[in-house]
Amino acid sequence: MDLTVTTADLAAAAADVVRLVPGRLIDPVLSGVLLTADATGVVVGASDRERTARVRRGALVHTEGRVLVPGKPLAETLRMLDQPQVRLVVEGSMLAIRAEGARFALPLLDVDLHPGLGTPAHTGVQVSGEHLSSALSTVATTASRDEALPIFTGVRIRTENERLVLRATDRYRMAIATVPCAAEAELDVMVPAALLAEVGKQLSRAGEVTLAMDANQLTLRWSDTVVTTAILDGAFLSENKLNLSGVDTTVVVHADTLLDATRRVALYSDTRGVISVEVGDTTLRLRATAQQTGEAEESIKATVTGGRTSPSYLSRYLQDALRPFGGREVRLAIQPGMRATILTHVEPQDIDLTYIVMPMLPPNH
Amino acid sequence: MDLTVTTADLAAAAADVVRLVPGRLIDPVLSGVLLTADATGVVVGASDRERTARVRRGALVHTEGRVLVPGKPLAETLRMLDQPQVRLVVEGSMLAIRAEGARFALPLLDVDLHPGLGTPAHTGVQVSGEHLSSALSTVATTASRDEALPIFTGVRIRTENERLVLRATDRYRMAIATVPCAAEAELDVMVPAALLAEVGKQLSRAGEVTLAMDANQLTLRWSDTVVTTAILDGAFLSENKLNLSGVDTTVVVHADTLLDATRRVALYSDTRGVISVEVGDTTLRLRATAQQTGEAEESIKATVTGGRTSPSYLSRYLQDALRPFGGREVRLAIQPGMRATILTHVEPQDIDLTYIVMPMLPPNH
Repeated sequence: MDLTVTTADLAAAAADVVRLVPGRLIDPVLSGVLLTADATGVVVGASDRERTARVRRGALVHTEGRVLVPGKPLAETLRMLDQPQVRLVVEGSMLAIRAEGARFALPLLDVDLHPGLGTPAHTGVQVSGEHLSSALSTVATTASRDEALPIFTGVRIRTENERLVLRATDRYRMAIATVPCAAEAELDVMVPAALLAEVGKQLSRAGEVTLAMDANQLTLRWSDTVVTTAILDGAFLSENKLNLSGVDTTVVVHADTLLDATRRVALYSDTRGVISVEVGDTTLRLRATAQQTGEAEESIKATVTGGRTSPSYLSRYLQDALRPFGGREVRLAIQPGMRATILTHVEPQDIDLTYIVMPMLPPNH
Repeated sequence: MDLTVTTADLAAAAADVVRLVPGRLIDPVLSGVLLTADATGVVVGASDRERTARVRRGALVHTEGRVLVPGKPLAETLRMLDQPQVRLVVEGSMLAIRAEGARFALPLLDVDLHPGLGTPAHTGVQVSGEHLSSALSTVATTASRDEALPIFTGVRIRTENERLVLRATDRYRMAIATVPCAAEAELDVMVPAALLAEVGKQLSRAGEVTLAMDANQLTLRWSDTVVTTAILDGAFLSENKLNLSGVDTTVVVHADTLLDATRRVALYSDTRGVISVEVGDTTLRLRATAQQTGEAEESIKATVTGGRTSPSYLSRYLQDALRPFGGREVRLAIQPGMRATILTHVEPQDIDLTYIVMPMLPPNH
């Protein structure tokens, strides 16, 4: 293999691929990056058997070829180069990265041991990259990071009435976002949230994204990038049954006002981190108290209808729930007892968001 | 105590004091902030017995008084308040922090157990805050952080020929900076580098700084802030004997060019992190190699005089040494064998800087 390419182009591709497939410490092959040069360009790819990523870049290819090299060192070297052009050329058992005045060489790994990049699916669902990115920034971070309970580490993605519904829970809260989509096929799949969180970050620069499903993987495709991921087993989380019959108190408030007050009052919360929200006629009064820390109380204006049910929350969860509504008003539908509170937008949005958070026993209970 | 004050003013004072005296976990009193309100304002102070800090702020004082409260919670609460004015008032056994719509209350600590803020010295040495801040950013970070060897955790500060000389070493490298000063008294003292590093950060906003010494402490005074610190015992590090008779190779190079190349080549260094610098007629060739990682080589233009002694360095130390010369040319005076390399400015600067770094055995030695 021997090719010349714009450094910044290849550096961005390598960085994206390494972030999408961080690899596995125990197996250097699965932490490798596969470079495939054909007549018109180079594909930067990686696979850890459960997920794959590939990015295509135009290049001046002198000799075609296919090599596997350590991923992170390649990405780091390209990132740190100031020289605008870089040449990648196989020299003996090394891949040389040559730029003006400099030569770096990475050992070649055995390309035959690599699982390859598989065959991505094509027909699927189209959605705006910006919408999906925004939805994932809330939903993918709500899933659990506890690998011992894999069923809570996934995001359920499903087409419903020309919208794509994304849903995740860690048992204590649940986020449901729906975005407009154009569906050539039905989709109903649960995939790892960690990968989707990284996809969401990279998507914010993309136009249209296609999601396509086959027997055992989901393919996401945008710009020059294709990502595949194995599907999690998750019959659960498939239904959209939200029983709101218990709601007796509804509060409308500016999300940022409540978020800022929550942050301040949370400084004084007990070791659990619980704050109470007292619902008044035209105010919410946030309270926290702890023997050691002191006590805090802050009132903010709110529009209250129905009863005066006054729940307590883990302040961290309430903050996570409020953040995606930032800059807008949010409606809190509160149920009595230990039943969930449901947060929704007041004004309709392109991305329809429902965030469900469980209450906690009040402080000093 | 009862006073009203501009929130941002008091928040900045509390944050500065808490950063200068982070306190001790084992003793809440030494992690406390002392608030002293008199007719015209409030002094925010702290002491951990070895260091003290106090900042004065104008305030509308309704009732004078003196209280001790937990420092970090006070600073955090003030930092997070959006309300422009805040009222601090003693209510029973609590200090209430009242702002529009909100009340926070911190428990009062026993002010009689606090060691107080002592008496700072006055007559001393004047130096520009900007100069001292810049010198400390290099010198204070070169000292060791290893508390087991307290003698290497200090910065020696000494007046010599109308300049203030600051010097620190961790045994592997040494930084010496001299800045112009106006001295009413001689100064020769060794004080903890960690405190000076924080002082350096806060000083960048200050005009003139005064350093004054008495029997067992050094006082630093700028704007509305006074800091004192206990003196370390350090007869050593007092002499400015730099024996450069062994220098046989001198290299002049742009500091940023060498720094950038060092960073790139260091990606390929061995487990020790060593890179070698081969001195040619008009170039420096940086090399690193490691069995697992691969190999790197980069050449940069340099002006070389004298011999061709080619040392190796810990890349991290070489980067630390080059960083303070950023944006300018640097002269490396290289000695053969395992003797130190001395880095200095090529063009005279207000802050005269000498950085000494020890070489290492070359890679694969």
